[in-house]
Amino acid sequence: MENGAPAWKFRGNEGLFAASDITVRGILYQLMANLDASDGRAVVPLGHGDPSAFPSFRTTPAAEDAVVDALRSAKFNCYSPTVGILPARRAIADYLSRDLPYKLSPDDVNLTLGCTQAIEAILTVLARPGANILLPRPGFPYYDARAKHSHLETRYFDLLPDKGWEVDLKGVEDLADESTVAMVIINPGNPCGSVYSYQHLKKVAETASKLGIMVIADEVYGHLAFGDTPFVPMGVFGSIVPVLTLGSISKRWIVPGWRLGWLVTNDPNGFLKDTGVLKSLKGFLEISPDPPTFIQGAVPHILEKTDDDFFLKVICILRENADICYEKIQEIPCITCLKKPEGGMSAMVKLNLSLLEGIKDDMEFCIKLAKEESVIVLPGIAFGMKNWLRVTFAVEPFSLQDGLGRIKAFYERHAKR
Amino acid sequence: MENGAPAWKFRGNEGLFAASDITVRGILYQLMANLDASDGRAVVPLGHGDPSAFPSFRTTPAAEDAVVDALRSAKFNCYSPTVGILPARRAIADYLSRDLPYKLSPDDVNLTLGCTQAIEAILTVLARPGANILLPRPGFPYYDARAKHSHLETRYFDLLPDKGWEVDLKGVEDLADESTVAMVIINPGNPCGSVYSYQHLKKVAETASKLGIMVIADEVYGHLAFGDTPFVPMGVFGSIVPVLTLGSISKRWIVPGWRLGWLVTNDPNGFLKDTGVLKSLKGFLEISPDPPTFIQGAVPHILEKTDDDFFLKVICILRENADICYEKIQEIPCITCLKKPEGGMSAMVKLNLSLLEGIKDDMEFCIKLAKEESVIVLPGIAFGMKNWLRVTFAVEPFSLQDGLGRIKAFYERHAKR
Repeated sequence: MENGAPAWKFRGNEGLFAASDITVRGILYQLMANLDASDGRAVVPLGHGDPSAFPSFRTTPAAEDAVVDALRSAKFNCYSPTVGILPARRAIADYLSRDLPYKLSPDDVNLTLGCTQAIEAILTVLARPGANILLPRPGFPYYDARAKHSHLETRYFDLLPDKGWEVDLKGVEDLADESTVAMVIINPGNPCGSVYSYQHLKKVAETASKLGIMVIADEVYGHLAFGDTPFVPMGVFGSIVPVLTLGSISKRWIVPGWRLGWLVTNDPNGFLKDTGVLKSLKGFLEISPDPPTFIQGAVPHILEKTDDDFFLKVICILRENADICYEKIQEIPCITCLKKPEGGMSAMVKLNLSLLEGIKDDMEFCIKLAKEESVIVLPGIAFGMKNWLRVTFAVEPFSLQDGLGRIKAFYERHAKR
Repeated sequence: MENGAPAWKFRGNEGLFAASDITVRGILYQLMANLDASDGRAVVPLGHGDPSAFPSFRTTPAAEDAVVDALRSAKFNCYSPTVGILPARRAIADYLSRDLPYKLSPDDVNLTLGCTQAIEAILTVLARPGANILLPRPGFPYYDARAKHSHLETRYFDLLPDKGWEVDLKGVEDLADESTVAMVIINPGNPCGSVYSYQHLKKVAETASKLGIMVIADEVYGHLAFGDTPFVPMGVFGSIVPVLTLGSISKRWIVPGWRLGWLVTNDPNGFLKDTGVLKSLKGFLEISPDPPTFIQGAVPHILEKTDDDFFLKVICILRENADICYEKIQEIPCITCLKKPEGGMSAMVKLNLSLLEGIKDDMEFCIKLAKEESVIVLPGIAFGMKNWLRVTFAVEPFSLQDGLGRIKAFYERHAKR
C-alpha cells in the first residue's frame, strides 16, 4: 500500500483480453471506427450477415404474432427448464425431421441462445486436455475464439475455391490424429456462399466415420439455398457418423436479435450417449443461460404458421443479389469471385494486390475502403484467408449496386498505373 | 475397432458431468421426480423463487406493452452490440443512480442474460490460477457451480442466523489471504430473506477495502424489502471499495423468463479499469450470447412506465406472505424461523431432526415431504447448510397456508413419540 491507496488483489483474466480481436464483431468495430463522418453518403454495410434492418428483409408478421401471443398469454414469464420447453423442442424436432430419413425426438433437441451458444456448448463439451478439432479455412472466427477459451486445439483444413469450396477431404485425413475429436462444416457456407451436394456430404460423413470423429454441422443458413444445388442437412448421414446439428431462426426468419437457436443430436445409433457427450452437454446447459421462455413459447407457431411465400421472397432477393454481386465484381479487376454463391448471404472474393498502388493487405484495403467510400466489407483474415474479402450481399439491391460501384471507383483511384 | 464399430475418439468433458448436482434446478428436478402422481391435491411449490405463474404475481401490463412495442417496431430484430444497446444501458444507469450518491454512466452498465450470466461473467473474469473468492454460507449454489467450472477456489464465510443473517466479518478477515480477489453478498438475501442495514453494508465495504478485495453485490432482489430495514444498494459505498452490482428485472417485475439482467460497475475511482477487470469483462461479453435485442429495446419503457402501484402490490403480498410463513412455522415444532424475513422471497428455517422419527437429514425430509404431501421445499444442503430448509413464500397466500398446513401434518405423522 502506497500513498494510502489500497493494493487491490484482483486482476482481469488475461486470457479474455484478446477475445475481441478475433471475432467478426471486433473487426467490424475497428472498420466502423474508420468511417469518415463528413461523407454525406449512406454507409453501405456489406460486412455482416444481418439484413434485418432493411425493409425487404423484414421478418414475417406470423413470427412477430407468435411472440406477441406467447408474451400476452403470461404462461411464459417463468424460468425455462434446462434444455428448453417441450413444445418448442417437439416443434423443432418435427421441422427438422421433414428432411431426414428418420424421425427426431424432442429429446434430441436442446434450445440455445442462437447458434453461438450452441457452438460454445459443443466446444466446451469436447474440450479435454490434448484434444483437437478440425475447422474449415475459411471459416467462422467464433469457433476459434471459443476453442481458444476452452483450451481446445484448432487445426485447419482447406475449403477448395476451385471446387466450389468443397472440403479438402485428403487434407482432413492428413490433419487428424488420435486426439482429434470432431470436424466442423458450415453448410450453406459462411463465408463462401457454397451449398454442398448430397454426394459431397456423404463423403464428409464417411471420412469422419473412418477417422472416428463426430461432425459438427453448422446449418445456421439452413434452407437459404438459391442455386442449382439443393440444401441437404448433414443429419441425413447420422447413421454413418454422429452429427451435431446447429441451427437457428436467425437467418431464415431474419431475426438474429431474437437469439433462438438449437443444438440437435442426429445420432440414431446412440454413440453420443455412449461416449458421455450427452451427459456433459446437459451439464453445460444446466449452468448456462437459457433463451427467454416466451420466445421458446412462440417457436411452435413460428415454425407452423410461416407460409412459403415469405421464404420464397427471401430466396428471390438473395438470388437476385448474388447475381448482382457476381456480375458487378467481374467489372472490378482487383477482386475475383470464382463461383457465384448458391446459398447463405456472402461471397468470398480474391484480392489481387498487385493491381493496386500502396495497399499492403486485405485489412488495409478494408480500412481505406471504409474511410474513402463508406463501404464496409470484411477482410479475409477474419476468416483465416489473408488477402481475400468477404462481401455480404444481404442488403437492399440498390444498396448493393451502390456499394459495388463505390468499390469499383475505389479500385480505379488506387489502380497501379 | 471391434465388430466393425468405429472407435470414436470424442468423449464428454467430465468436468461438466456433475454440474447439475449442485444447482437449485438440479435439486428441484430430483424432488419433483419424487412427487406422487396419485395424490389428488395440487402440488405446493415452496421450492423456487419464481412466482410468475400465479395470478397475484402477474407482471405489469406496462412491461408487456414495452416488449410488444419494441418487437412490433422491427428496429430490434438485429444483433446486439457487445455490451447491450445504449438506450437500455442509459435507462438502467439512470434507474440505479436514483439511489446512489453519484451518477452512473451508460458505460458502467453491461446487459446480461439475467443475473446468472452476470455471475458467470464476473467469476470467469476473476479466475486466475490460485485465486480464491469468498462466498456466503448459506448462499446461492450457482456461484459454486460457476466457480468450479472456472477453477476459481471457493471459501465460505458464515451468515449469522442470530444476527439477522449479517456477514461474519471477523470470519471474512480470517479466510482472506493474498490470493483472495472478491467477496459476494446477496442483498436482499437469498436464501435468508434478510435485508442489510446501511451500517452493516458500510462495514462490509470497509472490510473488503482493508483486505484489497472487490465486493460483488448480488441485488437480483433489489427493492423487494418489506420489513423495517430499507434496501440500500451496495454501490453507495463504491468510493470505499470497487463494487460490481448484479441486477435484473426478473424478481421486481416477476419475469425471470425474460432473462434481462445487468452487471454494473460502481467504481468512481476507476480501480476496475486499472486492474484490467473491465478489459477482461468486455472480452468475456464479446464471446458470449447477448439478451435478445428487442427485450433490450423495451428496457427504457419498462423502467419508466411501471407505476408504483404495481411495486406496492407485490411488496404487500410478500409482506403478508412473510407474516403467514413466520406465524405458521411457529406452529410446527420441528422447524424454526429465527427472524421474520424482511426481503426477497424466502426464509431459511432450522430443522430439528431429533423431534422426528426415521428422517436422517434435510434431503430425506424434502423427498418424503414431496412424496407424501406434494409440497416442495429445498434442503439446506443446496445452499451449503445441512439440516436447514429454504421455504419460498412467493406463492398465492392460500397456497402458502395450504402448504404449511401440510408440513404441519407431515410433522405430526413423523413426530417422535
